[in-house]
Amino acid sequence: ARPVRAPRGVELHCKGWRQEAALRMLCNNLDPECGERPDDLVVYGGTGRAARNWECFDAIVRSLLELEDDETLLVQSGKPVGILKTHPWSPRVLIANSNLVPRWADWEHFHELERKGLTMYGQMTAGSWIYIGTQGILQGTYETLASLARQHWGGNLAGRIVVSGGLGGMGGAQPLAVTLNEGVLVCVEVDRARIERRLRTRYLDAMTEDIGEAIRMAGTAAEQKRPLSVGLLGNTAEVLPEMVRMGFIPDVVTDQTSAHDELNGYVPAGVSCEQAAVLRSSDPGRYVEMALDSMAVHCRAVLDMKARGAVAFDYGNNLRAQALKRGVENAFDYPGFVPAYIRPLFCEGEGPFRWVALSGDPEDIAVTDRALMEAFPYKERMVRWLTMAEEKVSHMGLPARICWLGYGEREKAGLIFNDLVRRGRVKAPVVIGRDHLDCGSVASPNRETEGMRDGSDIVADWAVLNALVNVASGASWVAYHDGGGVGIGYALHAGQVTVVDGTDEAGLRAATVLRNDPAMGIIRHADAAYGRAVEVARERAIRIPMINRFT
Amino acid sequence: ARPVRAPRGVELHCKGWRQEAALRMLCNNLDPECGERPDDLVVYGGTGRAARNWECFDAIVRSLLELEDDETLLVQSGKPVGILKTHPWSPRVLIANSNLVPRWADWEHFHELERKGLTMYGQMTAGSWIYIGTQGILQGTYETLASLARQHWGGNLAGRIVVSGGLGGMGGAQPLAVTLNEGVLVCVEVDRARIERRLRTRYLDAMTEDIGEAIRMAGTAAEQKRPLSVGLLGNTAEVLPEMVRMGFIPDVVTDQTSAHDELNGYVPAGVSCEQAAVLRSSDPGRYVEMALDSMAVHCRAVLDMKARGAVAFDYGNNLRAQALKRGVENAFDYPGFVPAYIRPLFCEGEGPFRWVALSGDPEDIAVTDRALMEAFPYKERMVRWLTMAEEKVSHMGLPARICWLGYGEREKAGLIFNDLVRRGRVKAPVVIGRDHLDCGSVASPNRETEGMRDGSDIVADWAVLNALVNVASGASWVAYHDGGGVGIGYALHAGQVTVVDGTDEAGLRAATVLRNDPAMGIIRHADAAYGRAVEVARERAIRIPMINRFT
Ligand SMILES: NC(=O)c1ccc[n+]([C@@H]2O[C@H](COP(=O)([O-])OP(=O)(O)OC[C@H]3O[C@@H](n4cnc5c(N)ncnc54)[C@H](O)[C@@H]3O)[C@@H](O)[C@H]2O)c1
Ligand SMILES: NC(=O)c1ccc[n+]([C@@H]2O[C@H](COP(=O)([O-])OP(=O)(O)OC[C@H]3O[C@@H](n4cnc5c(N)ncnc54)[C@H](O)[C@@H]3O)[C@@H](O)[C@H]2O)c1
Repeated sequence: ARPVRAPRGVELHCKGWRQEAALRMLCNNLDPECGERPDDLVVYGGTGRAARNWECFDAIVRSLLELEDDETLLVQSGKPVGILKTHPWSPRVLIANSNLVPRWADWEHFHELERKGLTMYGQMTAGSWIYIGTQGILQGTYETLASLARQHWGGNLAGRIVVSGGLGGMGGAQPLAVTLNEGVLVCVEVDRARIERRLRTRYLDAMTEDIGEAIRMAGTAAEQKRPLSVGLLGNTAEVLPEMVRMGFIPDVVTDQTSAHDELNGYVPAGVSCEQAAVLRSSDPGRYVEMALDSMAVHCRAVLDMKARGAVAFDYGNNLRAQALKRGVENAFDYPGFVPAYIRPLFCEGEGPFRWVALSGDPEDIAVTDRALMEAFPYKERMVRWLTMAEEKVSHMGLPARICWLGYGEREKAGLIFNDLVRRGRVKAPVVIGRDHLDCGSVASPNRETEGMRDGSDIVADWAVLNALVNVASGASWVAYHDGGGVGIGYALHAGQVTVVDGTDEAGLRAATVLRNDPAMGIIRHADAAYGRAVEVARERAIRIPMINRFT
Repeated sequence: ARPVRAPRGVELHCKGWRQEAALRMLCNNLDPECGERPDDLVVYGGTGRAARNWECFDAIVRSLLELEDDETLLVQSGKPVGILKTHPWSPRVLIANSNLVPRWADWEHFHELERKGLTMYGQMTAGSWIYIGTQGILQGTYETLASLARQHWGGNLAGRIVVSGGLGGMGGAQPLAVTLNEGVLVCVEVDRARIERRLRTRYLDAMTEDIGEAIRMAGTAAEQKRPLSVGLLGNTAEVLPEMVRMGFIPDVVTDQTSAHDELNGYVPAGVSCEQAAVLRSSDPGRYVEMALDSMAVHCRAVLDMKARGAVAFDYGNNLRAQALKRGVENAFDYPGFVPAYIRPLFCEGEGPFRWVALSGDPEDIAVTDRALMEAFPYKERMVRWLTMAEEKVSHMGLPARICWLGYGEREKAGLIFNDLVRRGRVKAPVVIGRDHLDCGSVASPNRETEGMRDGSDIVADWAVLNALVNVASGASWVAYHDGGGVGIGYALHAGQVTVVDGTDEAGLRAATVLRNDPAMGIIRHADAAYGRAVEVARERAIRIPMINRFT
């Protein structure tokens, strides 16, 4: 056990704020308040790591401490491998995580390399040092469910029951996201400790080990249109089929177990959490077989619920593809959450804008919250979210906030924050980043790019270009990963983080990044023939040579 | 038919030399002198294209013509998809070609997308606009043999006899590559027409149909340390075993028949070229059996020669794997050319440095050749190559040159060229680039990264980091591709091109790129535990956080 916590305050340990920000955000990813298993350097999402091992962590810290303002640190799957002299406008850190040559990009080869100490799993914001605890996923899940509620029931989830699985790093946001939408959740989780943790942080309202009790509690609350979340200790591959057998069909069914990772993320039916840990190392081959079999059973139960009237959707954990491997031919009969609820936002350049107060003072976040509400009073959903978040979301690690902003808005917000730093309205520089799940940054045919209108789901040039554009625009650090939520070989994606320290240069760089990064989302969707994206490009004069001209 | 030819001379059509260079190099790739099937936009290597289609080509040209000095054009698999405002230090063009999400990265999915008009094959230097004709393969073969000579005989092949097979598209470079190294070659070729063609272009010195005569000629020349190349009409699977029986063991044995393709590439023993053509279509099954049997015989002869003292290596034609299929258990007892002869160069940061005179005047290349010979008089191999190239290599398209330079040398060469432009010693700016096959830019387990010491053959983070570093360092354009010579899904690689126009800024940018780009090769090989790379990093103060420190 080696607790890590980001330094707070205005004192620099590094030679510039961009290096300092990278240092603090790396540490923050491993803050016990924030990351899932910091002792193993695991931040979230199965085995998403911040650094390959502790030796690498120490070397990254050392490197950041000595890094000059015109130097760039290279990080290869969580290991610092080089320091190069570049120039002041280029990123201070460049990161590539978990990338394999496609023909060999699968878990088997990945794990073999991992055992040899040659790679690590970067997930999305773990290896790119911009994880902000469960708030990120809370907000995303809140938006997704709100969008679902609008489509199916005209506004909220009052009186509706949602069934899901997993209360891990991201899945743990589900209870609060559902109750914030006024609905009822039964969430199946195999690990008692995870349930207890969510009870402690009051994201989750109640716990039971009894399926009948869970159903009764949910039914009563739904009848009374009272928000409620219940953690049900159990295995999804056992509980969901049992619910179907019992004739219990929820209004909504989804899942957030780590089904994308059949060895480390998903516990097979009939196996306890502890037994799973043993079997995983004693007979990994058998473990994987069992896990995949269970996923097939699990997925079939979701399909059964859908057949009997539930709204089913996939929350990006690759359960459908895993089940398909095991012969569940109709696994893809229910949609992913992106085409169903998120893509319309992508066409506006909307995405998960997030920021962190390096001062460590929650009041700084309150100041930024108010500034955004002032700047965008017409963004009703954002205002409602920020008001709620200020009240209910406790900070984990460095104080942070997330809200979805579109093209133009992100740039404006960046400049507002830079100005707050300049004027001393916030006490230290602010870090601005985003999830890799964004409008123009990812190629992931089972999630973000599922069912693209032109059939370009598997084209990955866009993710590459996004990484290159963010470097070219002056981001503070840029990352490019294989994997993430859907597992090795199933997604490629880029991330950027930009620091505003109140200087003109920082403002200009932030504005450039925060304009170009979402522009790529609009370009990508316009190229794929989404009419709204073409429209936005025209309205906002985003230049797409074969679609529009502005001369 | 729509002939394209790059503009020549000092007059700008674009708003800056970087845009102009991109424009000219794009056109040059399609120059009928240079590219293979310019009407289909195919430059080389199967279907490696410069642009997705003619409409895209026109749109790229238009975009480059209007592109400002602080704007960046995005090219997605040969289609221009966006123009973004970045900043003066960032690249003018960012290119991503043929990239697919790994799980789907195979020919079947690629061709489906290609039919839909959603992608194109970028090869290495086709889609990244830095192809310079067949000079590349000649120099690469020369360099491989020079490296072999250095390892075994301290410098050149004088007095040494090489035996090889194949005088086809690439193999036809062997005779000149051997004689440039002052050695003697006996090259067995089954097709008389191929031999005669190489005699006509004077790549090959002599021809015979008699094995005894070939051996006598070779022996005499070797004794006199006189360079000589002899084309021996015959079949490798007959001639090589016969040589062994006769007790003739060459100093070096390799092969460039198209053994990788058992139906269309390799002629079985006992069959003439004409008979082969007939049998191939009348009984392809039998043909393949016979070809594989012959390859086993051929490979055993190579092994016999090796056992009796010859230096044997594979030139990437897959003969070893084919023979292994036929039970030649020890086929892999001799190494591939990359691990054996190229990797040691990679450990020095050496790679295929190439440049192009935008003036269009061959005299400009002569000036740069002389400048390099003056700057690096101790680089014997390079001097010998440049002297010969000046004499024997005719330009295809814009005048160009290639030679392998190492870490430090590339940077120095870039500054020298910039200075030549500044002083008007060359008439227009010079384009400096390289093949994607380079020390730190590629992940390709069947070629460039075969048999890495630490087992990291399939790790692709390095190619990603290379692309990002080149953007961060100020290259004029940067490309990142899937595919190339080994096919979709089998390799990922990055390329950079930098233009020197005589200004200080261009010099600084070129120096930064040409220092950092090969530095990544040294870093990659040092990380993989190659002692020489670790040494070079120490000698040249290349900072690798977990290997060395310089503070
Ligand atoms: N943006 C998105 O697309 C998105 C958002 C949220 C989550 N996800 C996906 O959801 C998954 C979960 O993410 P996470 O960070 O919470 O992962 P995690 O590994 O931290 O948590 C997974 C949880 O599932 C539990 N679990 C595993 N197998 C189970 C089973 N059979 N029955 C019941 N519980 C079981 C584990 O005990 C653990 O608590 C991932 O695949 C992630 O990629 C995607
Ligand atoms: N960088 C690299 O990895 C690299 C470089 C050069 C060549 N290669 C490999 O070398 C091979 C040759 O390339 P190419 O472009 O010259 O191919 P090619 O098909 O144009 O030429 C092959 C030649 O071999 C001759 N041949 C076939 N079978 C024969 C036999 N049994 N005996 C004698 N001659 C025979 C053919 O007549 C033909 O002239 C390919 O497999 C290629 O991939 C690899």
